[in-house]
Amino acid sequence: MLKVVIRAGGIGTRLWPLSRKGRPKQFQALAGRGTMLQDTFSRIAPVVGPEDVWVSTGPGMVGLVREQLPVLPEGHLIVEPALRNTGPAVALECALLEARWPGCTVASLGSDHYVGRPDDFRRLLSAAAEAAEDHPEYLYLLGVRPTRPETGYGYVGKGDELCRVGEETVWRVTEFTEKPDLERARQYTESGRYLWNANMFVWKARTVLDLFARHAPEIYGRLLLIGEAAVSVGWQAAVDREYPAMPSIAVDHAIIEPAAHVAALEGDLNWGDVGSWAALADVLEADEEGNLLSGRVVAVDGRNLIVRGPAEKLIALVGVEDLVVVDTGDALLVCRRDQAQRVREIVDRLGGDPELERYL
Amino acid sequence: MLKVVIRAGGIGTRLWPLSRKGRPKQFQALAGRGTMLQDTFSRIAPVVGPEDVWVSTGPGMVGLVREQLPVLPEGHLIVEPALRNTGPAVALECALLEARWPGCTVASLGSDHYVGRPDDFRRLLSAAAEAAEDHPEYLYLLGVRPTRPETGYGYVGKGDELCRVGEETVWRVTEFTEKPDLERARQYTESGRYLWNANMFVWKARTVLDLFARHAPEIYGRLLLIGEAAVSVGWQAAVDREYPAMPSIAVDHAIIEPAAHVAALEGDLNWGDVGSWAALADVLEADEEGNLLSGRVVAVDGRNLIVRGPAEKLIALVGVEDLVVVDTGDALLVCRRDQAQRVREIVDRLGGDPELERYL
Repeated sequence: MLKVVIRAGGIGTRLWPLSRKGRPKQFQALAGRGTMLQDTFSRIAPVVGPEDVWVSTGPGMVGLVREQLPVLPEGHLIVEPALRNTGPAVALECALLEARWPGCTVASLGSDHYVGRPDDFRRLLSAAAEAAEDHPEYLYLLGVRPTRPETGYGYVGKGDELCRVGEETVWRVTEFTEKPDLERARQYTESGRYLWNANMFVWKARTVLDLFARHAPEIYGRLLLIGEAAVSVGWQAAVDREYPAMPSIAVDHAIIEPAAHVAALEGDLNWGDVGSWAALADVLEADEEGNLLSGRVVAVDGRNLIVRGPAEKLIALVGVEDLVVVDTGDALLVCRRDQAQRVREIVDRLGGDPELERYL
Repeated sequence: MLKVVIRAGGIGTRLWPLSRKGRPKQFQALAGRGTMLQDTFSRIAPVVGPEDVWVSTGPGMVGLVREQLPVLPEGHLIVEPALRNTGPAVALECALLEARWPGCTVASLGSDHYVGRPDDFRRLLSAAAEAAEDHPEYLYLLGVRPTRPETGYGYVGKGDELCRVGEETVWRVTEFTEKPDLERARQYTESGRYLWNANMFVWKARTVLDLFARHAPEIYGRLLLIGEAAVSVGWQAAVDREYPAMPSIAVDHAIIEPAAHVAALEGDLNWGDVGSWAALADVLEADEEGNLLSGRVVAVDGRNLIVRGPAEKLIALVGVEDLVVVDTGDALLVCRRDQAQRVREIVDRLGGDPELERYL
């Protein structure tokens, strides 16, 4: 009994100006055929039907989810009234699903990931769900074999084998490292004993709730108050009351790292957390000049460029390299590629200026 | 009897995407209050009234001239049916004006120059016109004292004094150098004995015509055929027939350099031939980060930038330097500042592509 929750409540600041307050990155076509949310939904469709899929998001994005996923059944939206990171988000979804389908297995997935090998992804997902039936006390991470010494991701260390499911080996996880320095990232990548933590989780909802009870009682207490309303019409009112009072914490820190039983499966998923413009280049293939050009672009002597614009706009580049150029019609970003993280500073400036707020 | 001709037939390729086939740079506001043409017209207004001003331009730009200079009298447009450089343009305007006002003095000015000190410019203009009455056999250049070793301009060497007009000294010109190398440009600038040739000329129309007769008979011959129609209704038909058959040549090479009598006046005009985006920085004052920003621009850690966009467009820059960024709504240019000359290559590419021609 696998239920999938797609977490679609983020705001994607660093992908401004495409990612906007009113339409964050998961509702935009960034690196795939549809929007990132639609692609995530399509990716799991061969494994679970729409009746087993939920989407968690913010109150302002409900309309966008309905518009982009018209087949999602009524009531399959989990509306989080505040941004509280993945800890409370996971707790809430497990509370909801466990209350209605006791004993269910939950896959909790991001909506803003690129997965270049969806078949491999689905094989891991199914194998993890099967493993959860045999070893329900474990938390399962869908891990990605590192392809480069990335310092922006979390890594997990593989220990011994927990079990095998078909062709897949499920490894016990021995170690967590968040954003290692380059030297360590190199060692991890070369050793073959580490995986990227892709923030794609499979677990028994009951196991997760027990871990919150033990390691994050301040979240669990409020969860209980919500849980009492989980099968009644009072559900959303209870969420609106209790959720904003929960601490903002990543699920990794809240329960995964403290947990005694964590396992990981591994694959070459061509996966990427498209968190910044520069990260696009990690998942999409550049042309021979190292350029990722989308739209009507003419480049004279341009290299290592990431460029995108509206369909009818001509973007001409002369003698430039290592730039991100993103035009959305009302706003334009020109950014050095190795400083793509600093797009956040632009967004901060806009937020502080009444005249520029409308560009958020 | 001073007549002024403003040459407004150019196409301003290197200022794409602002300068367009349908609206070249002289019809755009680039560095002043009005468009460059309007600013040129306003600059001479205290010296000559509209009844003594003519504008030469191409057939496609007649409407723009009328729109931008509504006070220009009917018939004060000289329509050149083809681009033939300044040689034929000057010949044609002198032929027209000499036929109608024998003995007149003509000032022939570009429409795409920036002049930061219009008072000084007007003083030179009037002094040159006065000198032409005393020494009608001379060609007069309004020269600019070099402020930097510019390699893109032409230089003239000052010889001895021809005469004085009020406070102004008129120098005999001994030497012409087009686009010297940096070392020579440095020597010229430091010596104080050279001036920039600003392509602003004052001369007797008759003197010019005689020089064409002597040094460019292939132009003069066709001029005679036009001249016969100069005071009749057949004028434009004659121009349309003869002008395109003239060789394309700069007035400098056609008559000024071969002439025995050339003089120059000199001033600190804060003058600039705004021929490329980079040249804007030579005439406008940058902020303390070296940026010339026009429009709604937010720069985080940006230096030596030349940026302009539509009024309502937000342009955000992060960590970039030495760039030209010009957004016109339908087209965007991002160019390294020291390669601003290469914008021409973009325009060439557009011209060769039926799908992109509309961006010319």
